Amino acid sequence: MRAHAVGTQNWRMTNSRIPVAQLREFITTCLARLGLPPDDAATCGRLMAEAEAQGSDGHGVIRLMPYARRIRAGGMNLHPDIRVVREKAAMALIDGDNGMGHLVMQRAAQIAIEKAKNCGVAWVGARHSNHAGPASLYARMALAHDMIGLYFAVGNANHLPPWGGVDMLLSTNPIACAIPAGEEPPIVLDMATTVAAYGKVKAKAQRGEEMPVGWMIDRNGQPLTDPKRAAEGFLLPIGGYKGYGLALVVGILAGTLNGAAMGSETIDFNADDVTETNTGQAICVIDPDAFGEGDEFKAKVDQLIREMRGSERMPGVERIWLPGEQSHAKRELHEKEGIALPPALLAQLDSFARELGVQPLSN
Amino acid sequence: MRAHAVGTQNWRMTNSRIPVAQLREFITTCLARLGLPPDDAATCGRLMAEAEAQGSDGHGVIRLMPYARRIRAGGMNLHPDIRVVREKAAMALIDGDNGMGHLVMQRAAQIAIEKAKNCGVAWVGARHSNHAGPASLYARMALAHDMIGLYFAVGNANHLPPWGGVDMLLSTNPIACAIPAGEEPPIVLDMATTVAAYGKVKAKAQRGEEMPVGWMIDRNGQPLTDPKRAAEGFLLPIGGYKGYGLALVVGILAGTLNGAAMGSETIDFNADDVTETNTGQAICVIDPDAFGEGDEFKAKVDQLIREMRGSERMPGVERIWLPGEQSHAKRELHEKEGIALPPALLAQLDSFARELGVQPLSN
Repeated sequence: MRAHAVGTQNWRMTNSRIPVAQLREFITTCLARLGLPPDDAATCGRLMAEAEAQGSDGHGVIRLMPYARRIRAGGMNLHPDIRVVREKAAMALIDGDNGMGHLVMQRAAQIAIEKAKNCGVAWVGARHSNHAGPASLYARMALAHDMIGLYFAVGNANHLPPWGGVDMLLSTNPIACAIPAGEEPPIVLDMATTVAAYGKVKAKAQRGEEMPVGWMIDRNGQPLTDPKRAAEGFLLPIGGYKGYGLALVVGILAGTLNGAAMGSETIDFNADDVTETNTGQAICVIDPDAFGEGDEFKAKVDQLIREMRGSERMPGVERIWLPGEQSHAKRELHEKEGIALPPALLAQLDSFARELGVQPLSN
Repeated sequence: MRAHAVGTQNWRMTNSRIPVAQLREFITTCLARLGLPPDDAATCGRLMAEAEAQGSDGHGVIRLMPYARRIRAGGMNLHPDIRVVREKAAMALIDGDNGMGHLVMQRAAQIAIEKAKNCGVAWVGARHSNHAGPASLYARMALAHDMIGLYFAVGNANHLPPWGGVDMLLSTNPIACAIPAGEEPPIVLDMATTVAAYGKVKAKAQRGEEMPVGWMIDRNGQPLTDPKRAAEGFLLPIGGYKGYGLALVVGILAGTLNGAAMGSETIDFNADDVTETNTGQAICVIDPDAFGEGDEFKAKVDQLIREMRGSERMPGVERIWLPGEQSHAKRELHEKEGIALPPALLAQLDSFARELGVQPLSN
C-alpha cells in the first residue's frame, strides 16, 4: 500500500492520475458534506468511482456537480424510505422515494439476485428512482453470484424523437447485459439505444472535441458535430427505426411498467433541479445453475469468447474485442495506475471541493 | 363463410390473392402429407400462415419447401417428445427433441405464461428446437393474457462476423417484444440484430429485387446489393459494434444458456438438411398485473402510442409508425382480402403441391 501511495504521488505530480480509492473517498466525502448519510454517501462514492474506473466517463465523477445542484435545490430525497411496494415470487417493484438512483438500483439488484436463487430468474423494477450511472454497474452485480444480469433504464432527458418525428419524446434508454465467463473476463454489454449516449456528447463538450457525423442531427436532418450545439438537435437511434423501437420498448419495460415517467413525462434533469424525476429502471437476473451446471455454462462462454476473438480480421483491424473487454482493461489499468481526469473537469471538481470545504483532488 | 369463399374466388382469378384460411389449410395439408401428426401439422400451418398474414414474408410459406427438404432428409423428428428437462418456479428449460420449432416454442410460451401468472415473470428456454418462424409470433402469445412477451433466438445460419472480423460466427439473432395496449393495437417489436434479416435477403432474391446499400458487405468491406450473391458476403449489424454485441448476447441467452448451438456450432440449415440444428430460443413473459393494475398499464401504453404518433414530423414524413403497427395493418388487410404471393413463389408452391398430391393454391 505504501509503495502504491508513493507511486501514486509520482503520477499525480506528472500527469494528474488520481488513484481510484482517492476518487472514491473524494466523492463519498463530497456527498456526505452535501447531506447524504455516511453509508449512502459511501455506496454512491463507490459506484461512481467504479463507473469512472471502467471508463464510463459520461456517467462517473462528471455527474457529481449536477447531483449536488439537485440535492441543494431540494430535488432529491436525502433520507429516502426505499421499499418494496409490490412483490411476487420472481418479481418486485421498488419505490425509491426519490433517493439517489445508485441506492435504489443496488437494492433492486440485491433483491433480484436473491429471488433468482429461488426461482431461477427474477425481475425487479423501480419507480421514483433517479439517475444511477452506467447501466452496466447494476447488470454486473449479478456476476459475483455467477449469474446473468440484464438492466434497462429510462434515460433522464429526452434527446430522441420517434422515427420520422422531431419531438424529443424518448431518451437514450440503455440496455446492459452482464454474462459470467470462466477464465475470460465477463461479457458486459452496456449500450444506449442511440448511436451515442448523451453522456458521451457531454464528455466531448468537456474535452472540447467534435462529435463524429452520425451521432446527432439537427431539426432539418443535417449532421450536428459541435457538442456545444447539442441542445439544437437530437440523437440518432441505432439501426434507424429499430433503435427507435428498442428505445420505446426499453422505456416501457423500465418506466411505464413500474409507474415511472416515460415519454413526455420525463423530466430533463439537466434543465430542472427541483421536480422529482420519477426515474424508472429494471433489472432481470438469471441463474445459469437453474439451466444446467454453472461451470459448464461459464466454460462455454469462454469458448465463445475465444472463437470471436480468434476470427480472421478485416484489413487494418488489429484486434477483435468482446463487449466489456475494453472496460475491463480500463478498470485494471485504472486500479493500478489511477485515473487521468480531463484538466477542465479536474479544475471544476477542485473548485467545487473548496467550496464544500473538502480536500481537492489535485492538491 | 360462403360469401367469403365466393369473394375469394374473384380475388384468386384477378390477382392471385390467397385467403389466409386457404393458406393455413394448404400448409397444414402439405405438412401432414410430409408425415407430421395432424394436430402438429395444424399448429405449424396456423403459425406459418399467421407469419405470412402479418407480412413476415421471409418467415412464412416461403419456408415450406426448406422444411420439407429437411423432413425428407431425416433431419427433423416428426414425433418429438417435447419435454421440460429443468424447472424452477419462474423458469423452465425445454428439450424440443428436434421437432418443428413452432411446436417447441408454442409449448415454451404456454409454460412461460402459466408461470408468469404465479411468479409475476417467467423465462423458458429451449434446446434441440428448430427454426420457428418470426420471433414476434411467440412474443405475441403473451398478449392474449394481457401480458408482455420477450423472445430471443439463435438464427439458423451464420451471416454475421464479430465486429472487425470476417468469420461468420454469429447469426441475425432476433429480439421480439410484444406489449399489450388498451384501445390501440399492441406494440410489437420484431427485429434482427442485423440491419436486415436474412429472410428479407431471400425474399428480395425471390422477387428479383436489389438490396439497399447497408444490408450486406463483401469480405473486402464493399457494399453487396445483389441478393443472389448473398453467400459471398455478410450482413451488417445495427449500430456497428453495438449490434454485434446484441447478437452475441442474444445468442448466449437463447443458445448457450440452454445448451443449444451457438457460434461455430450453428448448423446452416440452408446448406445442411440432415444434421440436427440444436436450435436455441427463449421466451420471457411479464405480467403487468403484478406491477400494478393491468388496465392502468394498458391505458398508459395507449397514451404513449398516441404521443409518439402525434409528434411533429420531419419534412416529407407522412406518418409516424409504432413498432408492429404496419404488421397489424397487414394482418387486418390480409384477413379481409387475402395474401398476394409473389408469382415465382406461388408457382414453386403449386409445383411442390402437385408433387405431394395436394390441391395447388392457384388451381
